[in-house]
Amino acid sequence: MDTTSIFPQGDKLSNDWFTGNAFLTAFVAKDKNNEFSAGNVSFEAVARTHWHTHPKGQVLIVLEGEGFYQEEGAPAQSIKRGDVVNIPENVKHWHGAIAKSEMAHIAITNFKGELQVTWLEPVSDQDYAAVNSK
Amino acid sequence: MDTTSIFPQGDKLSNDWFTGNAFLTAFVAKDKNNEFSAGNVSFEAVARTHWHTHPKGQVLIVLEGEGFYQEEGAPAQSIKRGDVVNIPENVKHWHGAIAKSEMAHIAITNFKGELQVTWLEPVSDQDYAAVNSK
Repeated sequence: MDTTSIFPQGDKLSNDWFTGNAFLTAFVAKDKNNEFSAGNVSFEAVARTHWHTHPKGQVLIVLEGEGFYQEEGAPAQSIKRGDVVNIPENVKHWHGAIAKSEMAHIAITNFKGELQVTWLEPVSDQDYAAVNSK
Repeated sequence: MDTTSIFPQGDKLSNDWFTGNAFLTAFVAKDKNNEFSAGNVSFEAVARTHWHTHPKGQVLIVLEGEGFYQEEGAPAQSIKRGDVVNIPENVKHWHGAIAKSEMAHIAITNFKGELQVTWLEPVSDQDYAAVNSK
């Protein structure tokens, strides 16, 4: 296998919804066959999503690095290259890189009507540090 | 990035539907949120699908190596690491590795009711050799 990333870095994701530097390369948009969009999201070390929910779930396929997936009220799960997460609908959660490594995952995000995600508050620096210190 | 494959090899796919050695690691099955299954398919050099159709299309995301995607009546397209193919519904086609390299792609395969794919005849050795000689 090549030793470079598989996909281009893509476009920076807004800090309205992401903390730090995260980037998206879009693969496919919702269309007459696909009731989802799909793309590759790469997170620099420390970067992560805000807390959010998906009305019809999302599938993450981790291609590079190491990160966290955390549902509200539960411990953060370590996720790394080769892991898959099938995120349920309407569960408040976040995902992103660990503090010491980048992380990249494919995201397949289902639509419920025209809605794909509801963005909430950032993961605080204090909460993020606590998760990384474990 | 690591220099090993991201996913385990998985299970050999049946020679009823594939020529040569192809393998599947399943990620997710159809469920209440996902109207698709998703997994990683790896093809050894020369391995390829039979001709087939999908009633609601399929998305391929090439992670490793080099291969072909061909729709009936059209020239074969070269596909390689980093490429994405959004396969339309009900179009007869095949995909697989080139003769000189392995190829691996994620496949996101939509369901129409309970149907995902209709398998047809093999890609003949003669037709496969012709595509590889170009």
